[in-house]
Amino acid sequence: MSEVHEVDVVVLGAGPAGEVIAGRLGQHDIRVAVVEDRLVGGECSFWACMPSKALLRPAQALAEARRVPGAREAIAGDLDVAAALERRTEVVHGWDDAAQLPWLEERGVLLFRGHGHLAGERVVHVGDVELRARRAVVVAVGTAPTIPPIEGLADADPWTNRDATQVRDVPGSLVVLGGGPVGSELAQAFATLGADVTLLERESHLLGRDEPFAAALVQEGLERDGVKVLLDVVAERVERGTDGRVTVTTSTHGVVEADEILVAAGRRPLTDDLGLEQVGLGDRAGDAIEVGDDLRVAGHDWLFVVGDANGKALLTHEGKYQARAAADQILGHADARIREDRGPAPRVTFTEPQVAAVGHTLDSAIAAGLRVRAVDVGTESTAGASFHGKGAGGTSRIVVDEDRRVIVGATFVGPDVAEWVHAATIAVVAEVPLDTLWHATPAFPTRSEIWLKFLEAYGL
Amino acid sequence: MSEVHEVDVVVLGAGPAGEVIAGRLGQHDIRVAVVEDRLVGGECSFWACMPSKALLRPAQALAEARRVPGAREAIAGDLDVAAALERRTEVVHGWDDAAQLPWLEERGVLLFRGHGHLAGERVVHVGDVELRARRAVVVAVGTAPTIPPIEGLADADPWTNRDATQVRDVPGSLVVLGGGPVGSELAQAFATLGADVTLLERESHLLGRDEPFAAALVQEGLERDGVKVLLDVVAERVERGTDGRVTVTTSTHGVVEADEILVAAGRRPLTDDLGLEQVGLGDRAGDAIEVGDDLRVAGHDWLFVVGDANGKALLTHEGKYQARAAADQILGHADARIREDRGPAPRVTFTEPQVAAVGHTLDSAIAAGLRVRAVDVGTESTAGASFHGKGAGGTSRIVVDEDRRVIVGATFVGPDVAEWVHAATIAVVAEVPLDTLWHATPAFPTRSEIWLKFLEAYGL
Repeated sequence: MSEVHEVDVVVLGAGPAGEVIAGRLGQHDIRVAVVEDRLVGGECSFWACMPSKALLRPAQALAEARRVPGAREAIAGDLDVAAALERRTEVVHGWDDAAQLPWLEERGVLLFRGHGHLAGERVVHVGDVELRARRAVVVAVGTAPTIPPIEGLADADPWTNRDATQVRDVPGSLVVLGGGPVGSELAQAFATLGADVTLLERESHLLGRDEPFAAALVQEGLERDGVKVLLDVVAERVERGTDGRVTVTTSTHGVVEADEILVAAGRRPLTDDLGLEQVGLGDRAGDAIEVGDDLRVAGHDWLFVVGDANGKALLTHEGKYQARAAADQILGHADARIREDRGPAPRVTFTEPQVAAVGHTLDSAIAAGLRVRAVDVGTESTAGASFHGKGAGGTSRIVVDEDRRVIVGATFVGPDVAEWVHAATIAVVAEVPLDTLWHATPAFPTRSEIWLKFLEAYGL
Repeated sequence: MSEVHEVDVVVLGAGPAGEVIAGRLGQHDIRVAVVEDRLVGGECSFWACMPSKALLRPAQALAEARRVPGAREAIAGDLDVAAALERRTEVVHGWDDAAQLPWLEERGVLLFRGHGHLAGERVVHVGDVELRARRAVVVAVGTAPTIPPIEGLADADPWTNRDATQVRDVPGSLVVLGGGPVGSELAQAFATLGADVTLLERESHLLGRDEPFAAALVQEGLERDGVKVLLDVVAERVERGTDGRVTVTTSTHGVVEADEILVAAGRRPLTDDLGLEQVGLGDRAGDAIEVGDDLRVAGHDWLFVVGDANGKALLTHEGKYQARAAADQILGHADARIREDRGPAPRVTFTEPQVAAVGHTLDSAIAAGLRVRAVDVGTESTAGASFHGKGAGGTSRIVVDEDRRVIVGATFVGPDVAEWVHAATIAVVAEVPLDTLWHATPAFPTRSEIWLKFLEAYGL
């Protein structure tokens, strides 16, 4: 080893979870070293959440202005693709993490660039550098896109979310494999940017984790923007021809051709070559590393895993939540644990319409053995909807645990509903009884009066 | 009396509170008669909340689209005033309440048009018609704009919110007396519609009920739209000249001239000629009629007052909340009471920036004897603010009761923050501990991550 550094905590990975834990510890005067082989800020900041929202937003802002008489008439042109791409590049700082570094420096966090792996208990190697951790090592390595084992796919130079979010020239046509949140968002983004998009989904609906009505409404929204959505598709073979075009042969829907193919078929933990075997743990290459609600690996009190790599919830905000709890654990607060009784975490799909949900769907609540009732109302059923999102339709639902008379899930579908879900998250997490929610009057005329519609429809 | 009708409940006033109570009772097979001398739907639907939001919304939708590169470039023209006014007229159904009537009919509610007044216990007269109520009489008469006793004002043919929201031709110039929510909203609406607006406020700030930083930010927003805001103004005399123009003489800011003058200087309960003396109550003309948390007048168990007329909170949603509780009282649920321990009700001022608040301000909490701490963060401090409201600035605050570690107030200031407040309303009303809010993870990248910023700034 050419260099040896002794610190309090070593964090492998400087994505959102790694950054949060490093920053939180750093501001408590804990000496932290983070190891990152790509960009500080991670997948979410540079190749996922942030750039995809930047690509989706212009069409949504225009759609809303077009829904408002008086504003509508001021719009003469179409979305400016070059400006949208330029803004995307600005959001990701040109894929340069220099802007993130002062934040780490101010907190006394050391940055080591390269791939880190365990070389023993509380010892990490990054190339020639040895990092010795007095207190803890935190694995926050995240995930990478999965390329499913479809014949020819890996050799067809497929796009993942990384290529799609870095796009410089919008392709004339794009085929998207997978209709989860990533596939649905990027399919719509490229359609609004002018591409001819076909989305292929194996299942019989998009957004498998969400309420069926949400999936159906998003499918309508995609189709309205020109996306051809094909469901129940079995893709058998992919080929990139000598003309550069990609051909997807299905056994169910014939042949689909496009200029590019985007794979949005799930993600795998980046747990390869972590040196886990050096500390008596088996190799977990590609698999999640299991931890408890204190984010520690059982039997290895000094070893934490936060974010996607522990497989609990592949969501940036959940990774950050885990990172805060793990930091507090390292700071000696034994009661700082994540609450795994909260049910499924909040999640937003930023398509048009958006899907903002928290906790259970009706089906997942039933599967969890809860005695529940779903209450559905129109997303536009309030006076406030005369002014925002008008004419876009949509349905919203709460799922009520009838035994405890609390909400265990909520799903809102419509334009600009992303901010609605936090009220539901508080109600679910705090288990606020319906009879208390009754006294939480939504302001007139906001669209939040949908809460009143829910409670009235429930029978209060 | 030419006609006598016996019903279960008589409701005086078919504004939002009256409609809600009539509808709620009607669907429980209670026979209700409502008495209304203007339009069913009331001030809010036809001359206040609804048309004012319709007039404000186009400029806000355009402002947001202009903040989004890619959308911005598609906007060529300005707000279309004629289209905005036409949409306003559509929102108020051309000041025709025909569309509201089927809703009452479906619930078996009888409508009597005219001025109703008590003629004895559970007896109401409307012209020649006598209505006898088996169970209860509900006063839901609302308020009217106040014309302050400024020399010459009443004779100068001033506009109130009713004239302003009915505008057909936007005046070249307008002077607005009063900088509360109504004055601020209408001043900005007319400025965005092309009028040259001067707002005169007696106090040293706008929006006296709100946090001082909110008032300052709204003032900036108004000024950005060209409104001339004059504070600490003492208006001494108003005159409409032979040329039709209005002159306001102040002892502090010289003379202000405009084509029209809009008075937005508070409201008085419409409690004139209610016949209260017929049931042993003193005349309350212009004053609120006090009721308890069961909405009943003390000593008159059959007499309820809901909405603005009881003076508790001049807010549509609070009137509707009271109406639901009163209806449930009439239905025999003695525990259906409004919660007066909730602190100040949620309220939204729909200017640009919007002010969405619930519960205490820092000052009102201190005045209430609470040991509190204010936590301020930038409204734009989240990743989500890169996509919505970008560059508009703003501050948001929570007020924490340090003894109970719960939030007793919140104020959000920025574009499109109206829907943010309901999360805070639930937290305040349900007294959710900060340590529980910690587990309510806001979704990334929504602007609701401001909750995370609040908790981190608090020290969690």
